[in-house]
Amino acid sequence: MRSQEQSLSTIHLPRGFQFSAAKAGIKVSGRPDLAFAEAAPGTTAAALFTKNRVVAAPLQAGRKFLAKTGGRVRALIVNSGNANCATGPAGLEACQRICREGADLLKIRTEEVFPSSTGIIGVPLPANKIVAKLPGLIAERSASGPAVLQFAEAIMTTDTRPKLASERLGLGNAEVNLLGLAKGSGMIHPQLATMLVYLFTDAAAEPATLRRLLRSAGDQTFNCISVDGDTSTNDTVLLLASGQSGVSLQSTKVRDKFAAALVNVCRSLAEQIVSDGEGVQHVIRLQIEQARSRQEALLVARAIAHSLLVKTAWAGADPNWGRILAAVGAAGATVNPDHIHIYIGNQLVCRRGLSYTFDQGKAHAEMSKSLYDIRVQLGRGRASAAFLTTDLTSEYVRINADYST
Amino acid sequence: MRSQEQSLSTIHLPRGFQFSAAKAGIKVSGRPDLAFAEAAPGTTAAALFTKNRVVAAPLQAGRKFLAKTGGRVRALIVNSGNANCATGPAGLEACQRICREGADLLKIRTEEVFPSSTGIIGVPLPANKIVAKLPGLIAERSASGPAVLQFAEAIMTTDTRPKLASERLGLGNAEVNLLGLAKGSGMIHPQLATMLVYLFTDAAAEPATLRRLLRSAGDQTFNCISVDGDTSTNDTVLLLASGQSGVSLQSTKVRDKFAAALVNVCRSLAEQIVSDGEGVQHVIRLQIEQARSRQEALLVARAIAHSLLVKTAWAGADPNWGRILAAVGAAGATVNPDHIHIYIGNQLVCRRGLSYTFDQGKAHAEMSKSLYDIRVQLGRGRASAAFLTTDLTSEYVRINADYST
Repeated sequence: MRSQEQSLSTIHLPRGFQFSAAKAGIKVSGRPDLAFAEAAPGTTAAALFTKNRVVAAPLQAGRKFLAKTGGRVRALIVNSGNANCATGPAGLEACQRICREGADLLKIRTEEVFPSSTGIIGVPLPANKIVAKLPGLIAERSASGPAVLQFAEAIMTTDTRPKLASERLGLGNAEVNLLGLAKGSGMIHPQLATMLVYLFTDAAAEPATLRRLLRSAGDQTFNCISVDGDTSTNDTVLLLASGQSGVSLQSTKVRDKFAAALVNVCRSLAEQIVSDGEGVQHVIRLQIEQARSRQEALLVARAIAHSLLVKTAWAGADPNWGRILAAVGAAGATVNPDHIHIYIGNQLVCRRGLSYTFDQGKAHAEMSKSLYDIRVQLGRGRASAAFLTTDLTSEYVRINADYST
Repeated sequence: MRSQEQSLSTIHLPRGFQFSAAKAGIKVSGRPDLAFAEAAPGTTAAALFTKNRVVAAPLQAGRKFLAKTGGRVRALIVNSGNANCATGPAGLEACQRICREGADLLKIRTEEVFPSSTGIIGVPLPANKIVAKLPGLIAERSASGPAVLQFAEAIMTTDTRPKLASERLGLGNAEVNLLGLAKGSGMIHPQLATMLVYLFTDAAAEPATLRRLLRSAGDQTFNCISVDGDTSTNDTVLLLASGQSGVSLQSTKVRDKFAAALVNVCRSLAEQIVSDGEGVQHVIRLQIEQARSRQEALLVARAIAHSLLVKTAWAGADPNWGRILAAVGAAGATVNPDHIHIYIGNQLVCRRGLSYTFDQGKAHAEMSKSLYDIRVQLGRGRASAAFLTTDLTSEYVRINADYST
């Protein structure tokens, strides 16, 4: 599956950020595995972290650092090829050492460096390899499209392509730029799913404002996607605001515009992550309507998106609405089947919980598309949710069943 | 995967039951698809039904009938090849008509006939085909091993073999027999998972006693297995007691013995269902220990059993404990990774949430067995749960991705 990618020429680069990347030899493949970004003095930050109880060392450190600085970040150091998770006190020390060495070179405080890792679990992080590359990373950093692309490529694991999205907001004489870089592809072969997202803007905002904006955008986008239902130990979404545009998000009007742009960028990245899912042939946009609450709509969406029976039927482009109905019934919501309608594309296939005469060939053709909609109406209220998910193919199993050792 | 099957010579046939089967032409394959059992006058009954909100017609009828009779059943009529689900009022009428016609032939009340269906969802049940076979079924019924086996075969769908288990309890001069017949294989190709279980005994017991015994046995067995995490619209477990042994379950001592035998039979059937799971190469016995409560242990077991990353690693015999640890962390229990130990077979592979030096080759060899144990200790309390599940193979996806129409 390929989704629309952003070409370098349309990247709206926010002022106040410089990027670089390197090959540190963490990945066995020898591909780029180390990414660096520097943020201008005064840059504010907010982050979302995984809800998994097992949390990798860089997330423990990053959360602590953000608390210490009150939401200030001056640099990012991200490695792929090793998650630095289940590595104990030694893993935390390795992470902190990398941040400390980077801070010394940049003449900033250790806690102003935000660390991330993605890759295999339970293997010691080779901190020496990363530290050795820091001077070169810093020397080569630049505020350019190619440097941004190198950053995006260096954080990839099983991703088949880099993931970028950006927006430019015209605000009278001023303009605000927003750039998002992400990685994620179901999971990190051969170990674990991880989604890393970095959002850069030259708007000016307090950390508390960024936190509110990020939480809301995340709820509408990254929390509404699922490839395999697994939750990584390393998931991180970070938003940085350099303030270099001179535009503040204090005014409601500007903030609302920025919030919409942020949702757009996050949604684009979320779609890119899902469509790059391992072994994915079809991306399905679930529209759950007429729920009593958004929570209920999401509960039903997740039940459908996590059903192996539904996902395998999708792999076969099979308009098997009975499996969808059964997944809705098992979701944990007090639905009444007699009120449920199901649409494939714009065709009604199940009316009031019963089979409805529909064109099987047309439904099969719809489900043969790389992206299509399935709509479920619960007949209980006015809330709704959109949720992006995928089919489950033999290729997914093949990718993830390989013996790793 | 083959598990140990019960040979005909070791079936302990409870007195008071007769069995037969027929080909009614509901299955496209032309295989047997109609099963019948008659129970002696006075037979008491208890049942467990699916928790899915979408409930097939025979379950609606069966539940109502049991309530009307106060837990009395004189006959079972079970068809495979059609679930009679999402079929509306017409489906309920078809089900009731079959029970009515059967009752007329047997000169009993309609509500003394217990109906079951398993197969495709949303297709009208061909009641005429079933009704036409009833006189033959009744004429040919017998209390014999071959008739029992025919019943077990006629309820099969994607099952590759019939599932039987039985026990005989010696009680001084008396003896009590217990026979269980089941079907279930992940799901009904091409539609939906269904587990049907019929338990017959010649013990004498009030319906209320049977209900308590059945709920307890079900919680320890059928509620502790998972092939794909989907919940069928037709799942049914029925326990019938003819009383023909002359042994009552009123005495605590006899009841305890019977309860243990019931758990044994249910556990054997549960294991047979799991090991006959679609595309299954490995059955995994999850032992969750040191949980704060049994509910917590089951929550963790289900999270592991439902993780696609874990199940695909098992398909590759990959001792990838990081995926198990991450699934535990995402289960929803407030675990502390620093207290978690994980064993593959009897080998410790993760100690206090960290990698532990272990013999990878030995672990891989253990995981190449058709049945093995994975033990997770949470370090939180004294509760535990055993849970039976399977790997996820490309073959599972292939079986379930075929276009059904």
